[in-house]
Amino acid sequence: MRAKELMDKNFVYLNANDDVVEVSKVMEEIRRFTCPVVNDNKQLVGWITSFDITRGLREGNKKISEIMNDPKDVITVYERDPARKAVILTANNKFVTVPVVNEDEQVTGMIRACDIVELLSELYDIKVSKLYEAMQNQLKGVSWDELMSASALVSQKTTGVKITAEEYEDNIMNSTFGEAIWATGGLEKFFAGLISVGELVIARKVGKARR
Amino acid sequence: MRAKELMDKNFVYLNANDDVVEVSKVMEEIRRFTCPVVNDNKQLVGWITSFDITRGLREGNKKISEIMNDPKDVITVYERDPARKAVILTANNKFVTVPVVNEDEQVTGMIRACDIVELLSELYDIKVSKLYEAMQNQLKGVSWDELMSASALVSQKTTGVKITAEEYEDNIMNSTFGEAIWATGGLEKFFAGLISVGELVIARKVGKARR
Repeated sequence: MRAKELMDKNFVYLNANDDVVEVSKVMEEIRRFTCPVVNDNKQLVGWITSFDITRGLREGNKKISEIMNDPKDVITVYERDPARKAVILTANNKFVTVPVVNEDEQVTGMIRACDIVELLSELYDIKVSKLYEAMQNQLKGVSWDELMSASALVSQKTTGVKITAEEYEDNIMNSTFGEAIWATGGLEKFFAGLISVGELVIARKVGKARR
Repeated sequence: MRAKELMDKNFVYLNANDDVVEVSKVMEEIRRFTCPVVNDNKQLVGWITSFDITRGLREGNKKISEIMNDPKDVITVYERDPARKAVILTANNKFVTVPVVNEDEQVTGMIRACDIVELLSELYDIKVSKLYEAMQNQLKGVSWDELMSASALVSQKTTGVKITAEEYEDNIMNSTFGEAIWATGGLEKFFAGLISVGELVIARKVGKARR
């Protein structure tokens, strides 16, 4: 995924000559805490946050140019950059927004922390049963019931709690990848558990074929 | 993970009688776009965003009570709620902050979108090689070299591109779970690829044992 696919296009370009009071109204209206200030060619010449606006209103500044931040202090990503770059910038610097520019350095969008949360949380929301379906698909000749009974066995070994294949199936139908990772104590542990299940059903399958 | 473990404690409690100008300075100083307004018992009685502050400064409001939002419109989570609840609220409503309350409905922290990004992106930053280590650990008796040669074979089959075991090893040492998911086209596909590898090495292992 590229930065371009993640960016929000619902933002406004500010001009260095814009009036502070008018800009404050626009930002309230579109509900954005940050705005890029651009030249006539849409290239970044400054950066405004709500903190600059409150300070400007308090101190009676007239123009955006009087209160805007230096564009040198603003980190941008290119449209073609991996979306991950904006994610890492946001995570490491606690950014609210990362502006996106095209090849001509024109601002074309903004990547917001809440958009990133939406993107990342979608991954977590995949049902665990989908991963089991992928597993069954891959392990041709293994039935769903075999998979569930192997899983119940592995789960019982790991947790010491008795569970039937039917109960196990209920669990994975109702839980997400995110919940499973948190429940098992991390991606590697979750993954190790699935490998155990795979190992068991494959060993049974190979055993059967050789009989 | 509980909401309590994810929340940020670096916030300020506002009082309904606080002065709008003073609050604007404090919010700039701590760099927070949102603040809870509480009573003497730290229970939520209102909610302030930078948009309320800019409007208040423009219109000459004196007290926070004149500009604050109704607490009924603010969604809170409990400290004991799963952290995921705040993640879902943030993703679905594009929230910047979700306030956290304890059993006595006192505000004890704030969960911010950028903190969630940090948390979720950590998962993505796990090196793919760590997952292979978990796999090797689980599949007792399979060597790292066997795992790499099986992986190169599966990768070649899937992509049609020739790759040696050494090149494959280099790849997984340098790529993260996040990159792998994006490169393979999603969690299920990434997972299916790993299952293929597991299947191949297990079949070889079982085959060897029976010879």
